[in-house]
Amino acid sequence: MSLIVQKYGGTSVGNPERIKNVARRIAEARKRGDNIVVIVSAMSGVTDNLIKLAKEIMPLPNEREMDVLLATGEQQTIALAAIALHALNVPAISLTGAQAGIVTDGVHTKAKIHNITPKKVHELLNQGNVVIVAGFQGETSEGQITTLGRGGSDLTAIALAAALKADLCQIYTDVDGVYTADPRIVSGARKLAEISYDEMLELASLGAKVMQSRSVEFAKKFGVVFEVRSSLNDNPGTIVKEETKSMEGVVVRGVALDKNQAKVTLVGVPDKPGVAAKIFKALGDAAVNIDMIVQNISHGSGAPQTDLSFTVEKADLLKAQKVINALKNKVGLRDVITSEKIGKLSIVGVGMKSHTGVAGKMFETLADAGVNIDMISTSEIKISVVIDLAKGEAAMKAVHAAFIG
Amino acid sequence: MSLIVQKYGGTSVGNPERIKNVARRIAEARKRGDNIVVIVSAMSGVTDNLIKLAKEIMPLPNEREMDVLLATGEQQTIALAAIALHALNVPAISLTGAQAGIVTDGVHTKAKIHNITPKKVHELLNQGNVVIVAGFQGETSEGQITTLGRGGSDLTAIALAAALKADLCQIYTDVDGVYTADPRIVSGARKLAEISYDEMLELASLGAKVMQSRSVEFAKKFGVVFEVRSSLNDNPGTIVKEETKSMEGVVVRGVALDKNQAKVTLVGVPDKPGVAAKIFKALGDAAVNIDMIVQNISHGSGAPQTDLSFTVEKADLLKAQKVINALKNKVGLRDVITSEKIGKLSIVGVGMKSHTGVAGKMFETLADAGVNIDMISTSEIKISVVIDLAKGEAAMKAVHAAFIG
Repeated sequence: MSLIVQKYGGTSVGNPERIKNVARRIAEARKRGDNIVVIVSAMSGVTDNLIKLAKEIMPLPNEREMDVLLATGEQQTIALAAIALHALNVPAISLTGAQAGIVTDGVHTKAKIHNITPKKVHELLNQGNVVIVAGFQGETSEGQITTLGRGGSDLTAIALAAALKADLCQIYTDVDGVYTADPRIVSGARKLAEISYDEMLELASLGAKVMQSRSVEFAKKFGVVFEVRSSLNDNPGTIVKEETKSMEGVVVRGVALDKNQAKVTLVGVPDKPGVAAKIFKALGDAAVNIDMIVQNISHGSGAPQTDLSFTVEKADLLKAQKVINALKNKVGLRDVITSEKIGKLSIVGVGMKSHTGVAGKMFETLADAGVNIDMISTSEIKISVVIDLAKGEAAMKAVHAAFIG
Repeated sequence: MSLIVQKYGGTSVGNPERIKNVARRIAEARKRGDNIVVIVSAMSGVTDNLIKLAKEIMPLPNEREMDVLLATGEQQTIALAAIALHALNVPAISLTGAQAGIVTDGVHTKAKIHNITPKKVHELLNQGNVVIVAGFQGETSEGQITTLGRGGSDLTAIALAAALKADLCQIYTDVDGVYTADPRIVSGARKLAEISYDEMLELASLGAKVMQSRSVEFAKKFGVVFEVRSSLNDNPGTIVKEETKSMEGVVVRGVALDKNQAKVTLVGVPDKPGVAAKIFKALGDAAVNIDMIVQNISHGSGAPQTDLSFTVEKADLLKAQKVINALKNKVGLRDVITSEKIGKLSIVGVGMKSHTGVAGKMFETLADAGVNIDMISTSEIKISVVIDLAKGEAAMKAVHAAFIG
């Protein structure tokens, strides 16, 4: 008898009919003789509605109270899911995050899990129940309700799978698994049977938004093998796990295109120590996340000057511009140029560690396709380039064809 | 510095605008220098929506899970109310029933409060907070979420006022207080400055639906003086308390008309021991609540027979008919006649204990108004009569004029 942790997101439990579908799926899994723990999110729309209510009262509501408010979303789903299992004659019982023993720190709206004591979960499983646990939430050791922030329900599932030493952790979502590229753009994209944590992390941060990075990091840290699969069909999904020798045979696991970046170029930056530090410290203080940074070699006839480019999320561009404009005279910049018409194209694969010439092949492919490269950034298992947004999808197709087929 | 417990019902907190109004009211009370504990219900409509969702999944959902589900309604309001106070710069913090120390038995959907340990409430008050507590809910000593059933938030307010030894408990509602009669029917109806627990109990059970009987019973048992008043204006409401000598000077405190009753007459009931017992036992087993019972003297020429009439809530009439029809042949009834066109008119007053001739005056008044009396039932402080529904309001006006003016 195995212990399986299943997680269903907000779309999968979006209304009573869908909750009944999820219950049928759980009931089938249980018929195979396994113990099942289920993590559910709030029904889609519920959390947004609650946030809207709160903001109608106060634009920046207190975070402790937002946690009290938002935790109700998942609490509603656990009860409804348990009822749906009862309707199928499956014994089931719901637990809030606190009841399931999920203890967090006190950082409201983005709490970190401190520890999990799943005594109650074990007890209820031993009594023959499917145990339904509210995702996204926990409580502090002083009994304050907390929530885990974006992607929190995935995190609950993976952390609980680790604490329960589950045999399998399944993340049910509205996609079939992890693909070599977005199949809506690249018709030849294939579903991956498996992927390493590191590859998944790179893809997660590159705009292939299957899961939040923190859940994958947690799974990596505690060695939780999990499967990303669809709640709409019975197809096998993608297994995410520690990299194996055989994985290194594949040079490029996936290709991702992030259309959500913007580029800032600072023209005529005095090329002397401490200038870049001053600029990026100010941006960090304003909570602007910097992705890539490229600095050109010094040029100019008088005092040495350089050009400095970096990328930020589009949502942060205005904030970044304000910070830079405030510094402009103090630091002595000649000009600031921004562009939202960029795309970041990346290839990811643990096989790059043991294969050479990958970058060269990528750049050549792009050149053949008439795509100019604007910025380059690499890691051990990833190469990213910034290109013209208008050519992004064509570039993605060409690179996918060259490396994956 | 006084400690005031205020309770606001679902209509008073029905949307963000109304929650802001409630917050303004609380802020004003706090400006007077008092400590304030606030009990809130779910926003109007929220609980009904949740019940609807659950019933779409299963017609008779599990009661433990219904409690998990429904407790979210009040939890949402406490957070929103705290946020609304923050918006007015009033320090406020929310507590669920469990966090406020409300421990109940394990009878889900209609739990009884076992005890309250308001340590946390005291702590937070001492830190200068308005403390907002979720009505209608608690938890068992094993940490199961429970709800208190209909009128549960009033009960939370009164029980918490008792546990905190509050100086005042205010039940804010959408009526101005308790009236001598329904002012929509009797234009001369007056708001009462005060009323005894017993009178309030009789009126509560007689269709003057200001509060559920159990909350008034709880207040009586623990000597909690409370005020029923409107959340829409600043008028003083009605104080409900133990009866005083001065109250006995008033013979009739109020007149109530209950249009929600139906009458069942069993014709030709064999007049022998055990027949009535059999009938009412079967009705009790079917959870049909019987209100008044009248049995005529024996008649008939053959074996002694009698007619037996009783009243039930209209909602229970079909169920009662089924029970009676199943018994009809076994018991030997000649006929069953039912009527929904009845009204129950009652006068209530602790002064009746020390005044005579009250019943006679009531019957005379009705006779003068051409109203026939169908059934009569009395207690120490109440006289009820069943009359023709069509004449109900006219009868009420006549009786109010005769006793109250």
